[in-house]
Amino acid sequence: MAGPELESLEQCLEKHLPLADLREVKRILYGKETRELNLPRKALEAASEKDFELRGYAFEAAEEQRRGPRIVRVGLVQNRIPLPTSAPVVEQVSALHRRIEGIVEVAAMCGVNIICFQEAWTMPFAFCTREKLPWTEFAESAEDGFTTRFCQKLAKKHDMVVVSPILERDRDHGGVLWNTAVVISNSGAVMGKTRKNHIPRVGDFNESTYYMEGNLGHPVFQTQFGRIAVNICYGRHHPLNWLMYSINGAEIIFNPSATIGELSESLWPIEARNAAIANHCFTCAINRVGQEHFPNEFTSGDGKKAHHDFGYFYGSSYVAAPDGSRTPGLSRNQDGLLVAELNLNLCQQMNDIWNFKMTGRYEMYARELAEAVKSNYRPTILNEYLTSAPACQCGKGQLPLPPTNAFKNVPDGF
Amino acid sequence: MAGPELESLEQCLEKHLPLADLREVKRILYGKETRELNLPRKALEAASEKDFELRGYAFEAAEEQRRGPRIVRVGLVQNRIPLPTSAPVVEQVSALHRRIEGIVEVAAMCGVNIICFQEAWTMPFAFCTREKLPWTEFAESAEDGFTTRFCQKLAKKHDMVVVSPILERDRDHGGVLWNTAVVISNSGAVMGKTRKNHIPRVGDFNESTYYMEGNLGHPVFQTQFGRIAVNICYGRHHPLNWLMYSINGAEIIFNPSATIGELSESLWPIEARNAAIANHCFTCAINRVGQEHFPNEFTSGDGKKAHHDFGYFYGSSYVAAPDGSRTPGLSRNQDGLLVAELNLNLCQQMNDIWNFKMTGRYEMYARELAEAVKSNYRPTILNEYLTSAPACQCGKGQLPLPPTNAFKNVPDGF
Repeated sequence: MAGPELESLEQCLEKHLPLADLREVKRILYGKETRELNLPRKALEAASEKDFELRGYAFEAAEEQRRGPRIVRVGLVQNRIPLPTSAPVVEQVSALHRRIEGIVEVAAMCGVNIICFQEAWTMPFAFCTREKLPWTEFAESAEDGFTTRFCQKLAKKHDMVVVSPILERDRDHGGVLWNTAVVISNSGAVMGKTRKNHIPRVGDFNESTYYMEGNLGHPVFQTQFGRIAVNICYGRHHPLNWLMYSINGAEIIFNPSATIGELSESLWPIEARNAAIANHCFTCAINRVGQEHFPNEFTSGDGKKAHHDFGYFYGSSYVAAPDGSRTPGLSRNQDGLLVAELNLNLCQQMNDIWNFKMTGRYEMYARELAEAVKSNYRPTILNEYLTSAPACQCGKGQLPLPPTNAFKNVPDGF
Repeated sequence: MAGPELESLEQCLEKHLPLADLREVKRILYGKETRELNLPRKALEAASEKDFELRGYAFEAAEEQRRGPRIVRVGLVQNRIPLPTSAPVVEQVSALHRRIEGIVEVAAMCGVNIICFQEAWTMPFAFCTREKLPWTEFAESAEDGFTTRFCQKLAKKHDMVVVSPILERDRDHGGVLWNTAVVISNSGAVMGKTRKNHIPRVGDFNESTYYMEGNLGHPVFQTQFGRIAVNICYGRHHPLNWLMYSINGAEIIFNPSATIGELSESLWPIEARNAAIANHCFTCAINRVGQEHFPNEFTSGDGKKAHHDFGYFYGSSYVAAPDGSRTPGLSRNQDGLLVAELNLNLCQQMNDIWNFKMTGRYEMYARELAEAVKSNYRPTILNEYLTSAPACQCGKGQLPLPPTNAFKNVPDGF
């Protein structure tokens, strides 16, 4: 359970369901079916040689008279760490660079225009240990660190926008750490960076002792291939985070993540997809894969014995579209590259059909939220015994008793 | 497709998947399994006699030292309209009252403490017709209309909180219409009302020509059995609507709806469940079931021929919990009562584990939203050719060319 046993949900359904039922189940679970891409044979062969899964799907949009189709191919990369966490830092980073370089080459063969790697991709997800060294040695400058320069070369060579989520050392502001994604243009130029806005305080995700909530707001990057934003990991649990990227114009929001089976696997298919629906945009959910072991044992605040591993990263990276449809997930236990061809016209088309932005009443919510954060805020709670509550429409038949918290305990089969 | 063919997703999976695979698929799709309730035999017999589905599930929570379990049973009702839409208005309402009375009796046998009916439950969902008469004759006073008085009797008789979503005629404010839910205490007193905050402007949901966006904010009702709120139908697409009910203290948010297969069926399992996760509360998604035919034909703005029906209401009502788990859905093609036993302690427990409220940064969003609605708002868009954008971290290697919208059209299998 929550380990590597199951290859993928979709493969399991495809294996067992009769075709007519499978079609209905997929319609309800996934919406309109995505077309499988016919990827180049040499790319498939290279992926197989390099031992990673390669899959491709396309989302269609209706034809328009005044715009041609706005087709972009995105690549989502999920990967294990190639070396043990006890290897020297520089060797671990180099091995990750080599691994990613190989995957990006295959992405280029598949015509990928924008590629995004997993959260903190140059390191093991070591925050579970609560140790600072050697893990903070993986931090780099976003603007001109070793990894950013590596990604600039990749971007220029392959004419590909690269989204590179790293642990950032901010030398210009006291040398503090951030969880950051660097966005590099297909020209090779660093377009800018964006930071993780919400830092988890849950389980072994002890990230709040390593870095603070991002201070760069909700920037959107106008690339040659469309407007993109990056909502890093735990930010996917916060609908307002997605919303602000969308209000700022993002057509594709990447969500590079690192999350484990026991904590979040049943939430994984829900949150990024809900964000695509609610914001009329594409979302790209990327998770790590496999298990990472650490040299020193640690406990997890759950009453269990000390151990050396963080739990199982279940992969399952996927893309969701503004019409609520989605690709199948990548494998739960293999490195992988998911290529998705998006027609960005679908964003505006869904916006015009559903009109969530038009009906969003953001002025009301700006006002209500501003009130709600005040220390003297009194939420609107109607109580049949307190007729003074605001907007209360209390009716007849009021009883003289105060409300009780006496819940009825109803036994089964009474 | 999107019609009555499939009974339910869950029954289909249970029929075909081997047990071990089924367990894994359910874990990924639904999270922690809900326990099936052992409902009283007389209730099951009565449901069978009255020809509706009756199912019950329980959500558990951890034991606490300082609070006992806070157990509440909610009932979700989905039903067809019993009479044709051409029958006299009063007869249609009476038939619906009788149908609901029978279902509520069974709910009482099952120990239900709070029951919620479907959206505009006293009428067919006639807004697709764009006709005013006779449909607006279904509107009633929320405070002392025929239906509210009927629900007060039910509430008092069965010691049950009743959530009654109706078409409201507001005589005190020019006789305008609202889409409203009346909340009636188990004492029989009207606790108040709450109105649909977001009105659809999509497809045949021509509701914006019948009533306006609700003006009562986000009230929460302190019942004897817990704090409840009602997010009516299209409000479920708006994450901020759920959030404000939750900030105001709702532990259970009902979502009485009326929605059809072709439009929304693949979004249905996502949105209310995402809201339960994001807001650490229970959500109860209720949909109509079956097909409603109208006397005069109408078109749907989709290029298709005029027709007499609104599409297929797919039922599938369900309850989602703050830990992301959920019950199976009720049938896609049968009236039904879903009984769910909730331990409300789970809300605070999940709040303390995930901490979304603590990490929500609502001050920042109140500020950002207030800015975003201004007519002169300039979203933060970073462009490698415009270094003046706020917070821009543009790097080296800038090109002299302006950004193009020249998307690469990548053929399959190139």
